[in-house]
Amino acid sequence: MKLVVAVVQDKDSSKLAQNLVNANIRATKLASTGGFLHAGNTTFLIGTDDDKVDEVKHIIQQSCKAREQVVAPMSPMGASMESYIPYPVNVSVGGATVFVLDIEQFDQF
Amino acid sequence: MKLVVAVVQDKDSSKLAQNLVNANIRATKLASTGGFLHAGNTTFLIGTDDDKVDEVKHIIQQSCKAREQVVAPMSPMGASMESYIPYPVNVSVGGATVFVLDIEQFDQF
Amino acid sequence: MKLVVAVVQDKDSSKLAQNLVNANIRATKLASTGGFLHAGNTTFLIGTDDDKVDEVKHIIQQSCKAREQVVAPMSPMGASMESYIPYPVNVSVGGATVFVLDIEQFDQF
Ligand code: NI
Ligand code: NI
Ligand code: NI
Repeated sequence: MKLVVAVVQDKDSSKLAQNLVNANIRATKLASTGGFLHAGNTTFLIGTDDDKVDEVKHIIQQSCKAREQVVAPMSPMGASMESYIPYPVNVSVGGATVFVLDIEQFDQF
Repeated sequence: MKLVVAVVQDKDSSKLAQNLVNANIRATKLASTGGFLHAGNTTFLIGTDDDKVDEVKHIIQQSCKAREQVVAPMSPMGASMESYIPYPVNVSVGGATVFVLDIEQFDQF
Repeated sequence: MKLVVAVVQDKDSSKLAQNLVNANIRATKLASTGGFLHAGNTTFLIGTDDDKVDEVKHIIQQSCKAREQVVAPMSPMGASMESYIPYPVNVSVGGATVFVLDIEQFDQF
């Protein structure tokens, strides 16, 4: 058994959760904080058989891969002047950091 | 040293926390989300000596084991019609998913 | 690669986060609960090369090491009489619990 720990952006977390459910893979979502542009990250804990690790990583990659996104300028009312961007910009969103750990024992009660 | 990662239902988490304190076992509770019937899960991180792993798993099993529970019908006012159940039903609650990982180094500062 | 799991007190978590950023070390902060005096803990997940584990532990120690702190008496208005302390006391704050785990695979998508 392996434990896959995946740190993804909040905006990708419901897509990843749905894709894991569709593949019959059980996961636990942890609340987490921090990340780009003050958006939050979500951490998934996924226990899986050794021979399904590649499938799990493929699902994570498909659900969360880094991509460009155009961000419309925000009103200066809702943001500090310092962070005000007066024109649309491309920002990189998505992406996932994935750790695979060995599980010595696995139990369900 | 081993790291025991236990994912349990919120409703069992205070009982598990209390039973770990009674056994002098230190644990960290992480906030987590997801699970059956839209109830949340809680994840415990428990660092323990190799020879106490069985005791820790026994405490988790006693605190959280899966069992049947009668759920009274909810008023349709507070729920979508789709999920309205007009008679009491048995649902399975509790249960724990437990991963045991090897710790290479352990420090307290 | 190693995964460093560090459980620290909330009051040290922004200092630790800043010191990790200054050292170019990426970390994920998980929300967590529990700990001394009903204050919360924060858990950091830090993926790092094997030869940087000592540096990461040094940064954690410098950011979070246990120390004495004088706590002024709280008004009995805001607290139960039971916990009312009518004179300043030294309490031990800070400290960190650190687990180092081996990572079998590490990916960024
Ligand atoms: Ni294995
Ligand atoms: Ni060990
Ligand atoms: Ni390694």
